[in-house]
Formats: sequence, C-alpha cells, structure tokens
Amino acid sequence: MAEKEVLSYPGLDKVAGEEFLQEAFQIMLEEGVRKGMDVSEKVCDWKEPEELEQILDLHLKDTGETKTRLLERCRDIIRYSVKTCHPRFFNQLFSGLDPHALAGRMITEMLNTSQYTYEIAPVFVLMEEVVLKKLRELIGWKEGDGTFCPGGSISNMYAMNVARYHCFPDCKQKGNWALPKLAAFTSYECHYSIQKGAAFLGIGTDNIYLVAVDEKGKMIPEDLEKQISRAKSEKAFPFFVNATCGTTVLGAFDPLHAIADVCARHKIWLHVDAAWGGSALISQRHRHLLDGIERADSVAWNPHKMLMTGLQCSAFLLRDSSGLLQRCHCAKATYLFQNDKFYNMDYDRGDQTIQCGRKIDCFKLWLMWKANGTGGLEERVDRAFAFTRYLTDEIKKRKGFQLVVEPEFINLCFWYVPPGLQGQEGCTDYYARLGKVAPIIKERMMKKGSMMVSYQPHGNRVNFFRQVVTNPAVTREDLDFFLDEIEQLGKDL
Amino acid sequence: MAEKEVLSYPGLDKVAGEEFLQEAFQIMLEEGVRKGMDVSEKVCDWKEPEELEQILDLHLKDTGETKTRLLERCRDIIRYSVKTCHPRFFNQLFSGLDPHALAGRMITEMLNTSQYTYEIAPVFVLMEEVVLKKLRELIGWKEGDGTFCPGGSISNMYAMNVARYHCFPDCKQKGNWALPKLAAFTSYECHYSIQKGAAFLGIGTDNIYLVAVDEKGKMIPEDLEKQISRAKSEKAFPFFVNATCGTTVLGAFDPLHAIADVCARHKIWLHVDAAWGGSALISQRHRHLLDGIERADSVAWNPHKMLMTGLQCSAFLLRDSSGLLQRCHCAKATYLFQNDKFYNMDYDRGDQTIQCGRKIDCFKLWLMWKANGTGGLEERVDRAFAFTRYLTDEIKKRKGFQLVVEPEFINLCFWYVPPGLQGQEGCTDYYARLGKVAPIIKERMMKKGSMMVSYQPHGNRVNFFRQVVTNPAVTREDLDFFLDEIEQLGKDL
Ligand SMILES: Cc1ncc(COP(=O)(O)O)c(C=O)c1O
Ligand SMILES: Cc1ncc(COP(=O)(O)O)c(C=O)c1O
Repeated sequence: MAEKEVLSYPGLDKVAGEEFLQEAFQIMLEEGVRKGMDVSEKVCDWKEPEELEQILDLHLKDTGETKTRLLERCRDIIRYSVKTCHPRFFNQLFSGLDPHALAGRMITEMLNTSQYTYEIAPVFVLMEEVVLKKLRELIGWKEGDGTFCPGGSISNMYAMNVARYHCFPDCKQKGNWALPKLAAFTSYECHYSIQKGAAFLGIGTDNIYLVAVDEKGKMIPEDLEKQISRAKSEKAFPFFVNATCGTTVLGAFDPLHAIADVCARHKIWLHVDAAWGGSALISQRHRHLLDGIERADSVAWNPHKMLMTGLQCSAFLLRDSSGLLQRCHCAKATYLFQNDKFYNMDYDRGDQTIQCGRKIDCFKLWLMWKANGTGGLEERVDRAFAFTRYLTDEIKKRKGFQLVVEPEFINLCFWYVPPGLQGQEGCTDYYARLGKVAPIIKERMMKKGSMMVSYQPHGNRVNFFRQVVTNPAVTREDLDFFLDEIEQLGKDL
Repeated sequence: MAEKEVLSYPGLDKVAGEEFLQEAFQIMLEEGVRKGMDVSEKVCDWKEPEELEQILDLHLKDTGETKTRLLERCRDIIRYSVKTCHPRFFNQLFSGLDPHALAGRMITEMLNTSQYTYEIAPVFVLMEEVVLKKLRELIGWKEGDGTFCPGGSISNMYAMNVARYHCFPDCKQKGNWALPKLAAFTSYECHYSIQKGAAFLGIGTDNIYLVAVDEKGKMIPEDLEKQISRAKSEKAFPFFVNATCGTTVLGAFDPLHAIADVCARHKIWLHVDAAWGGSALISQRHRHLLDGIERADSVAWNPHKMLMTGLQCSAFLLRDSSGLLQRCHCAKATYLFQNDKFYNMDYDRGDQTIQCGRKIDCFKLWLMWKANGTGGLEERVDRAFAFTRYLTDEIKKRKGFQLVVEPEFINLCFWYVPPGLQGQEGCTDYYARLGKVAPIIKERMMKKGSMMVSYQPHGNRVNFFRQVVTNPAVTREDLDFFLDEIEQLGKDL
C-alpha cells in the first residue's frame, strides 16, 4: 500500500535536476574551461595524495548532501585536477580542448546510449560508419571495415585477434592449442600494448620477436626479415607484423613500403599502429610520413590524441570488406541481435566487437569535423608540426639544450644540461647526473604549477624530456615560456 | 616567416568556443533532457536508415559550417536519437537520467584526462580507489583490488585472464601452448561475453563447458560438478567458473554458496558476473539474492546498468590484495611509469590494466552517491523491485498476458497472447504464431514512438518481451500505459 503510493510519484525531481545541471555547467565553464585555458592560472594545483584526500573528503556515506555542498565539490574536483586544456600542458600525447568536440561529448553523455543496434542508436550507427569511412579514405582504402574501440591498446589487440583468426579460424572454437606456436613481430620502439595484447590473447610475450631500429627509432626491414627466419627456425608461425607510425617516445615512423614487401613475401598480416601518427594523414604536407599505409591489412588510429576529440576515440580499421571482423568476433546473442526485426538488421553492427554495451565515440569527432572541415583540421595538424619546428630551431640556438634526435614528427625529445653540468661530458658520472636533472625540474614545475611535460629514460639514454604540442590554443609565447622555464627551474643544478 | 606569424596567435577562438558550448548546452537541456523525460513526447522519432541518412547529411566535407548550422545539427542529432531517459523506455538494462551523474560525466569530459597516473589524474586516482573500496565493502570484502573497465564484457575477460595467470603465471610469457588445455564453466544462461572472452583470450569457445540450469534459469551445482568431471576426463584443466547474478534475459541468480563449495573442492577460481544484478547489494531487503558473493575470487559489477551512472561504468573487483592484478597485466613502460618520480608511485595504478589511456569512469558514480547517499540509492533499487512486483501482479490479472517465469529480480519476461490467439494453445502452429506477436508489436510501438521494450526468443521459448524498469522517473501510470499499449497495439493480431 505504502509502496504503491510511492510508485504514483516520480522518484526524481526533474526541476531540481535541471537546476543542478545548469549550475554545475556554469562552474565547469568558469573553473575548468575559462581558468583552464588561462596562462595566469596554474596547470595543476599540486597536492600530495594524503593532503588531497583530506581536502576532498571522498568517503561515501549513507545520506546525501545539499546542492550547495555538491556544487562546492564540483568546484574542488576541477580545481585540484590537471588542466589538460592549459596552453602549458605538454605532458601527454593529448591536450587542448575543442569546444565542438566537447559539445559532442556532452550531448553523447546526455543521450547515453550504446552503439550496438540501430534501434537504440539510429543516428550513431550511421554516423560511425561515415566517420570510419572518412578515416579509411584518408588511408587510401575505397572499401573496408572497422569499429571504434575503447583506446588504441584495445585496437591493437583487435588487430592481433583478427590476424590470428584470419590465419586460423579454428582458434575461435579450439583456442591456441589447435594452432602452431604463433610469432608476432614489432620493433623495440613499439607501444607496450603489443606486449599487453600478446599476454591477454594467450599468445605470450616471449612470442613477440622484437625487431631492431635505426638511430631514429624506425624499424629496420632487413632485421624484420631476419627475425622472421629466426621464428621459422624456432618452429613458430609468423602471423602478425606491427609497424608503428609515430612511436610513443621518439615519434618515429616505420618504413611501411619496405615492411609491406616483407609481409607480402611471407604472407603475414600487416597491422599499422598509427594511434599517434595517423592524424598526419590529414595533412597534404605531412602525410608522406605514412606512405604505404594503404598496403596494411589493419590500422589503429586515435583521434583522441592529435585531433583533440577527447578520450576515448580510437578507430580500428580494416582493409577487409568480407565481414572478417564480424566472423571473428560474433557470438550471435539472440536477445540483442534478433533476426526477425522489422528493419534491415545489417545495421546492427555490435556483434563485430568484443564488447556488448559500447560508448558512442564517433559524435565528438564528427561534430568537430563538421565545424572545422577537413581543411580546418589540416591547419591544426600543420600548426603542430610548425610548433615543433620552431622549438627545434630554438633549442639549437640555446645553450644547455640538446636534441635526442632530430624530430620528424611532433615529439620533441631533448636533454636540458644545466650550468653545473655543461662541458663535463667527459666525466664518468656525467650521464648519471644528467639523468637526475629532468625529474628534479619536473618536480619543481609541478609544485609551482607553471607547466607540465613528461620525461623518461629510453633504451640506453638517460632521462630526457618529451614535449608535444597538439593544442592550437598554444602560441609562440607559450613555447618561449616553456624553454625559459626549464632554464629557470634548472639553473642551480 | 608567414608560419611564425601564425604561431603568434592562438589557433582557437576561446570566446566563440564558450558561446557555442553555452548554446549547445541549452539545446541539450531543451531537446534532450526536458523533452526526453516528457511522456507526451516520442521515445524515438523512428526513421528508416535511408531516410535518416537523407535528413542528417552526415557526410564530412572540406570546409567547416556556421554556428547556426552546427546548432541545428545538434538539435537534429538529439531529435532522431532514442531518449533512453524517457519514462517509457524499457528496452535495455540501462535507462533514465540522473542529473548528478550527468553533471559528473560533463565535468569528466571537460577535464579530459586519463586514469593511469597520479600526476595526470590526482583527484580521480584517489576517487577511483574510494569507489572501488565501497563496492568491495558491499560485496563483503575488507581488502581487495580492482579497476574500472570499459564495460562488463571486458570485466569478464579480465576475470578469465587473471584466473588463468593465477594458475599458470607462465602463460603471460609463453602463451597457452605452455599450459594444459583449459576448461571454463558457466551456465547456459550466462552473458555472451564469456564466449567472446574465451575466443579473444585464445582459450576457445569449445573449452567452455556449459552447465545446465533449472526452470528459473539458475545454474545447477550438481551439473557443474558433472561438467568438471567431464572436463577432467577430457584432459582439460578446470581453471574458471563463472556464476551469474542477474542473468541478462531472465534475471536469474546462480546459487553462489553451492557453487563456491564446488569451486573450493576443486580449487577453481570463482568469478561472479554481477554486471546486472550487483546493484541489488545496495538494498538491505534484496541483497540476499547474492548471498555467498563474498566467497568469489572476482566480481564484475556494472553501475551503468541499474544504478544509472551512464555508460560506461563497470567495476572489475578482486578479493586478492597481493598485487595479482598488477603482476598479471603490467608491462612496466618507463615512459609512463617512471620509477624516479617525486611522489609515491604506488598511486600510478595504470599498469594493472590492459589499457593505456583510460577514461575516468568513477566520478559520475561518486557524485551521484554523494548526492543521494547509500540510502538514496537503496531506495531506487527497492523502487525498481517494487515496479516489477506491481507489473507482475497486473499481468496476472490481465487477460492475454502470461509470465515466462515468476521474476526474482527486475526482469519481467512475459508473452502477450492477442485475442486472435487466446485459447488456441492446442493448435499445432500456436507457438509459431505466438512468436510473431512480439516483433509486430515492437514494430508498431517504434513507428508510433510511444515506448520501447525488447523481446527475444530464448532456448526453446518463442519470442517474449523482457521489460525492465530502473528509471526512478517512471510512475505507476507509465506502467499501466505500458500494459495498455501492448494490448492496444496487439488487439488485432
Ligand atoms: C603508438 C601508440 N600506440 C598505441 C597507444 C595506446 O593508445 P591508448 O592510450 O588509446 O590505449 C599509444 C598511447 O600512447 C601509442 O603512443
Ligand atoms: C549478465 C551480464 N553480464 C555482462 C554484461 C556485459 O556488460 P557490458 O554491456 O557493459 O559489456 C551484460 C550486459 O547486458 C550482462 O547482462
């Protein structure tokens, strides 16, 4: 009775809900967008974990809180978060904030649907196909297939799985035990998701043959050939070559034509991990870096990196148009993919993925594309290259800055050699001391909140900075600041 | 020169950007939230794919479009999308729109960061841990581990991979070839992601032993015991049992204590797929459905379903607190997880996942929890059960409605037997004709836009409706409408 009474009224206050959304949105604009893009504000108000825990009072309780308190919390959450849209944020392979992409994301979140069937996502099923087709065209494919995945790592895993299924369709039912031991090939500079994928797919990281790279970080095709021979002599079956376009640290592009020749000779699936470098395809000027990509069997391309769509937006693209993706992944669940629907069920594409519910990842990219046109996106890509060229030139002029490699993409890798270390290259502890410089400068910039840039050791090279600018809100002034600030923060070292 | 000139000015108009966001947000509120929740509006303005393609002009072009045009597009995208927040949307295991969760999603999208390191997501690294801990407490674990995954399917795959690694750590390096053939166990009623996982992980769908269920759809523990013996006799190594709490179609809960006993006896990893049913743990009244879940080794739980956080929000939870998750998945990439950072690097948890960039999935749940308290969420869960009870009672009273099983959860499965079929159970073509009813009624409701509910054939049962209400905005009136409308749409059949 009392229960039935309750059911007569909605259990949600729509008016209060809309009010909350309005106010939260204004806070978001003020604290996040406006302050986030303002260079006079901090990139991040750094707190140690214990301190931050205290400030935020994250604990979940039995009773709810007032609107005022909740809005304060939103403000705090934004305040203590990193502003990845800040013009001095250079820490990741993504940065910046595109207003159209953000609007697309907000509407996606409001609509809250899943990509699996046409009945539940009519607009987005059609839109995803249009976007994927556009990306395929930029690769140079007239036909093909694909899907958006929750990140480039998972796109790379799709590639491995499809390649395996392509060689040995039995694997789907029988598992790896029905197959010869598989061998995958990738360079030493590849993204670690290839390793994670081999482990997850039951292939094993030992069965990845690492191919040597040249001094720029590009795969050496002759060594690929050698590794294939080695695998064969070890009775492993070469099924998958991963070439990287835009390596994570150095930004190197593997020579695709030469690699494709090797793959063709040995009939091995060629996957191109263009998660990072793929967006250069939009630039008439720079797309030559990926020459030969049209010969790949599959490509991973993350518009959430250079194109600024926002996380997550990663396309897995296939040259095959025979339905390989569907055959490889389908489970034919009748509760979702009924075969007696009243519309053309070819539009229900969800069964070609490994997911069930799948976020709409295409709309943000689509809306941004509509707003800027291919031409506008091309300008941004060219601008990013120009930033890197500008910084490279500056670095060559400044004392204490030293390039790790001449950039061919937009990864600017360099050491800063502070005054106290300059001219001491001969000393035995020089590299040990140089390796300590970047972490200290990083700590100082974080605590000051002035900027963010990443560093890493790499192979036998000690810690160096990797700087990347994709955010079009950045100006030359921010880049000059960047170099000045490193000098400033490191001058006593 | 010209290029340097360009770099002196930002390539993004902040003021115009903010204006666009403001206007897009108001459209979103008006077209999506307000109309979406209004029962006098359509759930979906149905168009055939070809027609919709025409209306939307999705094609991506070289040049950008005006603000007016882009805002019109936003309006259209919303108009032709399904309103999953509509009180008459019962089609999926998710529905409704929580304003706090949506605010959390919007802020997440604006901040656009990745969950992998503390330096890039200080607030969210701490927050994720708090939320996961809370979920673990509801399971009954004092300690443990976990991560948010892009969906329950992938959470289930994590479970399989961790279980495999737990038995055979060598697998990570050597692949399945170094292992005996594995055997996994799950019921006939399990979600299809178990199949997809077995295929993806190189285990193979043939190595899933399907366990019989009773008439309610619950796994029969004695048959599990039998299947384990069968697997052993076939020289397979039993490594993984999946029990489902809240099966996708019938909403059945597998008997966990009895299953845990079998697993303990055979030392097999017990995973509980509570993607759907997990949220019942929040209700003091209904959590008994999951009695024994504390004995599981791992649990998948999707707050994006019953708790209305919005897609994607799926927790993979582990009882282990020895770092198994980390050991299983780590690749130790030094460019991201440097070991000479200035803060406690235990907070960089990204290497325990199979992803690299990972969306922030915790904030929406956290903010909603802060707004409602555990008590408020409990009320919603109880309300959902009450809806189902109300509808069940109504169905029993109404002519032509027939339950498939008495619901123990909130999946209401029933046939509608239209006047033209009533009393003809004896006819040879009765079931064939009954199976055609739901698709026709579905087509009619879609074209009318009055509501959405799913149907499916299941085992040897012909098409029946599966109705689920999780949206607290729904009232008894909507439920009465639901039954009336089915009668109305099917009265001539
Ligand atoms: C070359 C390359 N491939 C793949 C990835 C993985 O992409 P995601 O972070 O979306 O998983 C990255 C990420 O940095 C990358 O640099
Ligand atoms: C029981 C069960 N497990 C797992 C899943 C998969 O969850 P997701 O759609 O998030 O992949 C579902 C989805 O409906 C489900 O019902």
